[in-house]
Amino acid sequence: MADEQRSYLMAYDINDDVRRSHVAKILQSHGERLQYSVFLLRIRPSKLLKIKASVEDEIDSDTDSILICDLGINDHAERSMLFLGKRSYRDTMIPTII
Amino acid sequence: MADEQRSYLMAYDINDDVRRSHVAKILQSHGERLQYSVFLLRIRPSKLLKIKASVEDEIDSDTDSILICDLGINDHAERSMLFLGKRSYRDTMIPTII
Repeated sequence: MADEQRSYLMAYDINDDVRRSHVAKILQSHGERLQYSVFLLRIRPSKLLKIKASVEDEIDSDTDSILICDLGINDHAERSMLFLGKRSYRDTMIPTII
Repeated sequence: MADEQRSYLMAYDINDDVRRSHVAKILQSHGERLQYSVFLLRIRPSKLLKIKASVEDEIDSDTDSILICDLGINDHAERSMLFLGKRSYRDTMIPTII
């Protein structure tokens, strides 16, 4: 089960508009945009390695910051996340507390 | 061990400058700013309830979005996070991949 699908939260701080839109496109093509700079990717670890490499090619490692958070297998991940207020972008299975 | 200290990642999308700075102040006073809109709080679940209530008082739940991610007990949390590129704001114990 080493390459079982897991949920990864990815967030970025990228100053440059062009780099930011490139990274957003990569993350959005493999996952779900939860907030402006926060994405949820439900992928296999092997896929994460490829995405990490693509993102590393785009960023300026002196100024840009990418945080990757392994939330575990999908069921566990869903239970570990909740939203207050609006759930941006698109509805997901994540419970919302109004 | 029900109220054992855990690590929570909190991220926000808040349009209004005043609301945003109020929420940032709350989160920063209880945790560590990892990125512009992402914070790591190492707190007890009982404390999280109070912080949630304070944040809910500040936000406009129609437009603002707060994501709370329970990363588990601190040791587990440290292992589940990594940075690509710059680690914004202040160094933490989280490993960095250059």
